Amino acid sequence: MLEVHAELLDRLELGKVADYIPQLATVPLQKYGIAVVTREGELVTAGDAAEDFSIQSISKLFTLSLALGRFGDRLWDRVDREPSGNAFNSIVQLEHENGRPRNPFVNAGAIAVTDAILSGHLPKEAIGEILSYMRFLASDDSIVIDPLVARSEQLTGHRNFALAHFMKSYGVIDHDPAMVLGVYFHQCAIAMNCIQLARSGLFLACDGCSPLTGDRVVSTSRARRINSLMMMCGHYDGAGDFAFRVGLPGKSGVGGGILAIVPGKASIAVWSPGLDINGNSLVGTATLELLAKRMSWSVFH
Amino acid sequence: MLEVHAELLDRLELGKVADYIPQLATVPLQKYGIAVVTREGELVTAGDAAEDFSIQSISKLFTLSLALGRFGDRLWDRVDREPSGNAFNSIVQLEHENGRPRNPFVNAGAIAVTDAILSGHLPKEAIGEILSYMRFLASDDSIVIDPLVARSEQLTGHRNFALAHFMKSYGVIDHDPAMVLGVYFHQCAIAMNCIQLARSGLFLACDGCSPLTGDRVVSTSRARRINSLMMMCGHYDGAGDFAFRVGLPGKSGVGGGILAIVPGKASIAVWSPGLDINGNSLVGTATLELLAKRMSWSVFH
Amino acid sequence: MLEVHAELLDRLELGKVADYIPQLATVPLQKYGIAVVTREGELVTAGDAAEDFSIQSISKLFTLSLALGRFGDRLWDRVDREPSGNAFNSIVQLEHENGRPRNPFVNAGAIAVTDAILSGHLPKEAIGEILSYMRFLASDDSIVIDPLVARSEQLTGHRNFALAHFMKSYGVIDHDPAMVLGVYFHQCAIAMNCIQLARSGLFLACDGCSPLTGDRVVSTSRARRINSLMMMCGHYDGAGDFAFRVGLPGKSGVGGGILAIVPGKASIAVWSPGLDINGNSLVGTATLELLAKRMSWSVFH
Amino acid sequence: MLEVHAELLDRLELGKVADYIPQLATVPLQKYGIAVVTREGELVTAGDAAEDFSIQSISKLFTLSLALGRFGDRLWDRVDREPSGNAFNSIVQLEHENGRPRNPFVNAGAIAVTDAILSGHLPKEAIGEILSYMRFLASDDSIVIDPLVARSEQLTGHRNFALAHFMKSYGVIDHDPAMVLGVYFHQCAIAMNCIQLARSGLFLACDGCSPLTGDRVVSTSRARRINSLMMMCGHYDGAGDFAFRVGLPGKSGVGGGILAIVPGKASIAVWSPGLDINGNSLVGTATLELLAKRMSWSVFH
Repeated sequence: MLEVHAELLDRLELGKVADYIPQLATVPLQKYGIAVVTREGELVTAGDAAEDFSIQSISKLFTLSLALGRFGDRLWDRVDREPSGNAFNSIVQLEHENGRPRNPFVNAGAIAVTDAILSGHLPKEAIGEILSYMRFLASDDSIVIDPLVARSEQLTGHRNFALAHFMKSYGVIDHDPAMVLGVYFHQCAIAMNCIQLARSGLFLACDGCSPLTGDRVVSTSRARRINSLMMMCGHYDGAGDFAFRVGLPGKSGVGGGILAIVPGKASIAVWSPGLDINGNSLVGTATLELLAKRMSWSVFH
Repeated sequence: MLEVHAELLDRLELGKVADYIPQLATVPLQKYGIAVVTREGELVTAGDAAEDFSIQSISKLFTLSLALGRFGDRLWDRVDREPSGNAFNSIVQLEHENGRPRNPFVNAGAIAVTDAILSGHLPKEAIGEILSYMRFLASDDSIVIDPLVARSEQLTGHRNFALAHFMKSYGVIDHDPAMVLGVYFHQCAIAMNCIQLARSGLFLACDGCSPLTGDRVVSTSRARRINSLMMMCGHYDGAGDFAFRVGLPGKSGVGGGILAIVPGKASIAVWSPGLDINGNSLVGTATLELLAKRMSWSVFH
Repeated sequence: MLEVHAELLDRLELGKVADYIPQLATVPLQKYGIAVVTREGELVTAGDAAEDFSIQSISKLFTLSLALGRFGDRLWDRVDREPSGNAFNSIVQLEHENGRPRNPFVNAGAIAVTDAILSGHLPKEAIGEILSYMRFLASDDSIVIDPLVARSEQLTGHRNFALAHFMKSYGVIDHDPAMVLGVYFHQCAIAMNCIQLARSGLFLACDGCSPLTGDRVVSTSRARRINSLMMMCGHYDGAGDFAFRVGLPGKSGVGGGILAIVPGKASIAVWSPGLDINGNSLVGTATLELLAKRMSWSVFH
Repeated sequence: MLEVHAELLDRLELGKVADYIPQLATVPLQKYGIAVVTREGELVTAGDAAEDFSIQSISKLFTLSLALGRFGDRLWDRVDREPSGNAFNSIVQLEHENGRPRNPFVNAGAIAVTDAILSGHLPKEAIGEILSYMRFLASDDSIVIDPLVARSEQLTGHRNFALAHFMKSYGVIDHDPAMVLGVYFHQCAIAMNCIQLARSGLFLACDGCSPLTGDRVVSTSRARRINSLMMMCGHYDGAGDFAFRVGLPGKSGVGGGILAIVPGKASIAVWSPGLDINGNSLVGTATLELLAKRMSWSVFH
């Protein structure tokens, strides 16, 4: 893995840091970390694996898991499960499909999931519940939310406000858009490092049960289904390319992180802030491609 | 497997036979066959597994494999690899994306692949090459093309003519649209039964090498990639749902057939002509869902 | 004109009152008024011509005129002048065209115009300026804003919030979306009767100069251009049909009002709350069609 | 008018000759003609007003008039009357609207009109009928079709083939797409000069009756309606801009011609092959804008 890290170092400048969230625009392109946690609990790291970054849309994976735990398959009444064929923040499909989001990993869908989590809670409580869930999954109580990032998103998140109000006009979300986005911007602003992230995803590699703590997080069948959603929709309009090149379920965030799952074997977190044209980490994807090839990890055998 | 077959028999009437190709509209809804071939060469069948049906879009999987063999990764210059988020015969994305098809499994993309296969050939030769390839994969020289179906498609395939001319206007296909479609309609009209189809797909379950004959059909890495394309795009705008419910790569056809791959283990062909709203076999999908659950077959572990 | 009014009375039930603004949903379908003011100042009325209704999108015509007065042709930097081919509240084109609205009469475009009017003003001042302008045009200081309608729109206007935030994300509007919409909802809630409305539009029939007061409102060339925009875009995706049937520039509102201009001759206001499928007054359009035919009024000779 | 011609001469190089029809790509950018025929029969010309050019889409105006004469308002069963908000050759709206073209002046709509004209005729007869109609309108039997242009369009018109096959798949056109396009390409290839064209349009300026011959071509009401369609849809996605700047109904062609109508007064034909971004003659539009301003010609008073 150190080899992979070394091999790709000179490509770090090729990506472009997300600039529409001012707080993220300041992160240096040179940051690059990898962490792998195996089913047996073995941890291997490289580079900046212990440095915090903003998990952003990777949080959508965990709020989905959390909401499925509370609402079960009723959650699918408000969000579909199909790849979108559009950008992560596109509003076109919402208009063509009566405000119903395509899947829980495009922004609209994730906002609808957060709206579900907010049911019966104050925004502060919902934020607290999401943070607790992350600490539980990572077995690490030091995980926090970066308030500057949350505030930066709040101030500049007009596209997300548009999505939320649009869904609200169709009755797809229940709460006030500002309240839902208050929670959503905080979940996106959770700061984690590669090690914590890889640990958090391990239950998906282990049929729903985390070998770190022995806790069952979701059923085997739900773990499979969450993996399938990551594979189909985890990289927006680059999902096909990611599946083709890497062959593993994965979820990316505009902070430059990607969490990938090797079902039955391992959980991998990579971080490199330079993004490709679809908003996915450029070197992060290359890392997973190379690592999967070297390790012969692929769900397609 | 016989149990699965018996359990789903009463749902056969729920689907709708494809009616836009007159010749297919005459197939009885009661037809229902299953065939599984394992890596070890074991064959299990149920129902009408030995009766021929029109493979239709399942042929796109094999022409892709054939074209990749001839052109390698240059093929991706003319067709993309992303889920479309649209119907199999949609032309909207072609206009938005300069005539470049989204993936090789929507009609436009498959026509572009067939156009590549036509290079250096007369239409008759290209049709012959495709048929030979199918006979080789299935190790069965009795496979033929149904001329009535081919003719029926020719007469009513205006939507496909629209797609081909549209791509031609962007220079995405090289040959005369009528010539390309002449080949395309014949590949769709190949008649096979479940047993032949399951045998033909076995190389994709076995890292590119067919255990029936010992022949290497494609490299391990290409077999994985073809599987990833089947998973991402094999069921049009129902791909997400198929991945969620079945968890295996699969390719459907409007004749009611589906070929699904259990990487490392088996190849499955099902046939039931009643289609769901996305044009995929309704009972075929249910069969694969139940079978995968009972056998605990899933690429997501 | 009384004949036209009588002839169409039995069609009043065919339309559908706008129901997405609760306050408008309570207006009886039986309301029906007509007022014509000629260039010479003659007034003819029929039915409920003296009863107030919510002018809604007809206000867009006057805010456009007001904004052109302040910003001149620089206004066209932020909004285009083409028919949209879409519904009045569609957001699809905004995404395809980088947040730039198609014309000042779709909701997005009108919000962008209101944003311009807000420059250098507090929302209250902008609302006051718009109201003063209406009173000036109608020569009638009794015109007011209906606060219940304004509030009703504020509470249910999620679609407009979506449009405003979407444009804000592209930098197309300068102010806070909530502030802009605060003004916008008030301009839509202006209550006027047919007589006041017909008087307000008379300057457009008279080369920019109101014969009621002798005031020049806009230049001759600007009056022509505003008329052209009404003709091309004044009835959303029913503009072609309105031009075909009526042959006059007109602007409709979901309150059931339509203002139509007979260049060189007269200004006509009709009100009937039942709407057709495009959100334009059904009997209002029929009234104008019949009236134009009887009077042989058409810009096309 | 000679002044207008002289003033705009130096802008001729700014446009771009249509290059997707090879035969049109050879026409020099320097060509520039104007012809005005008044209601009283007076003719004024400037520049290359007597030189033939390919009328292209201006033919759509005359086939519409011809088809309305044969089928009356039943023609509207197959084509709508709304501006499209899209390019002249867009296929997107056809898919969203079940194959029904937006208006008779986008390519799809004009092809549907030609399909109607073909009813009961052989293609040759239909072509003959259209040509006769042009000769009758212009009172000039020397008008012919340029066979090289017709052939050039036939060979490169894949986009039009796509539109025709697409409509055929929805049953919107009755005849074989190749037959319909055979006629359509010939109507587009009619060669006329500005003088002939201005004379042909004069009936639309004179309530349906040509003062040149005294013949009634269409009823007064139909003349108005055709003018309204020209205004709303005659310049594709530049219709709003044309109405704003020129204020007259007009129909453009990619050969660089524009026919504009001054209702009650005159018919104007301009020709300059350089096109703007929407496919309308750049200097032709500027000519009409300047001429309309100088003469104070506008339907908006």
